[in-house]
Amino acid sequence: MSGEGEKKQSESDGPASSPTPGTRRPGGRTARTRTVVRDAVLAGLGELGYPGLTVEYVAARSGVHKTTLYRRWGDVEGLVADALDLAGEDSWLPPDTGSLEGDLRALAREVVTSFTEPATGASGSAMIAAGFQSERAATALRAYYVERFARCETIVERAVARGELPAGPEGAAVDAGALVRAVPAPLLCRLFITREPIDEALADQAAAAALAAARAGVFTPGRVAPGRPTGDASAPPRQGG
Amino acid sequence: MSGEGEKKQSESDGPASSPTPGTRRPGGRTARTRTVVRDAVLAGLGELGYPGLTVEYVAARSGVHKTTLYRRWGDVEGLVADALDLAGEDSWLPPDTGSLEGDLRALAREVVTSFTEPATGASGSAMIAAGFQSERAATALRAYYVERFARCETIVERAVARGELPAGPEGAAVDAGALVRAVPAPLLCRLFITREPIDEALADQAAAAALAAARAGVFTPGRVAPGRPTGDASAPPRQGG
Repeated sequence: MSGEGEKKQSESDGPASSPTPGTRRPGGRTARTRTVVRDAVLAGLGELGYPGLTVEYVAARSGVHKTTLYRRWGDVEGLVADALDLAGEDSWLPPDTGSLEGDLRALAREVVTSFTEPATGASGSAMIAAGFQSERAATALRAYYVERFARCETIVERAVARGELPAGPEGAAVDAGALVRAVPAPLLCRLFITREPIDEALADQAAAAALAAARAGVFTPGRVAPGRPTGDASAPPRQGG
Repeated sequence: MSGEGEKKQSESDGPASSPTPGTRRPGGRTARTRTVVRDAVLAGLGELGYPGLTVEYVAARSGVHKTTLYRRWGDVEGLVADALDLAGEDSWLPPDTGSLEGDLRALAREVVTSFTEPATGASGSAMIAAGFQSERAATALRAYYVERFARCETIVERAVARGELPAGPEGAAVDAGALVRAVPAPLLCRLFITREPIDEALADQAAAAALAAARAGVFTPGRVAPGRPTGDASAPPRQGG
């Protein structure tokens, strides 16, 4: 199922979306091999999950010889980690709707789309599952998300430039990393930890919650704000992400 | 390591904490057997993880005969699911500090403690990992968290009674389930999805963010509030949980 889905994936590839490829980059023979192998790995993860994935499957699906796979990627763990590394090399850019609120909502909706769409959701979920079974996959996942969130910080920079966010004392800026991490968290937590369903309404709520916290100064280092304009010295906001 | 940890677990057992037992309930021989088996399952999950856990291990560790385990629990999947069910039957109660802010912060800090403390963290993480490999574990995890969050709603009810939260139109109340779910989400997402570290500062930030969103009306159905007092009709808050 996810095998047929690669073409669609760039559309729903998001900041915390299923770690699947965005638009393809031109590249030589080696780059093309890496891409077909990555596609086969994602298809296998979607179909069989991490425990079921084998080098034999990837060889059969990609048409790349087993010996080449063993030589370049070592084993299944290496194949999965590289597929994640490659997913992080796509050309995805965060939404740019002209307002902080619109950007955060679009970001949250991308998360819902990418994980509820069968083609991208299966391999993305399997990548996250792999993080529990492989140290290298966990390390690659972390690098993937750190890089994704870094791209998302432009959303916050644009909002600050538009004067949509409050500045802290001595103009301390909002912690962009903390703000963009706040958007997908409630959705990913429901999907993979508490196992509760998500939908567009919850995406909008997640975006609104992150925005409210940002406006209250929760993500602005040094700005005292537990949620009301008056602030509360007993709850200094902390720097996250 | 987690084998030595059961005694400590009730202290750090939280709303979204590692699904491990709270204080023991008095019970007959059957209840005692269920408890020692549960402890052995948690120890095994912490030591070996879900893929490595076997009925043989649980029998050896618990001293309960294999045939009894197979008869009552069927297999490893059944043992893990029942350990989660039992974890949900503890006597844990959410913090009651006298203020909404204090309660939410204490709740967030319990999550950090329960997952960063080796004894409880290992088995708790393994339970969450099991949700990726076993449908029954995923179903039991969901039931565990739904029940945990339901207990946490008293925090919101007390806050509303104290007048700490705004009411919506026609006095619409805040969605308690959505508010209490917002507290652990950023922490669990970092731990298990983006694989980033957590600490007390991030716990305080998560609590402050949830509180700011609640005060802005994001969790109050029908109350228009994307984060500023004036509200914004383009971003009606939605009911979560």
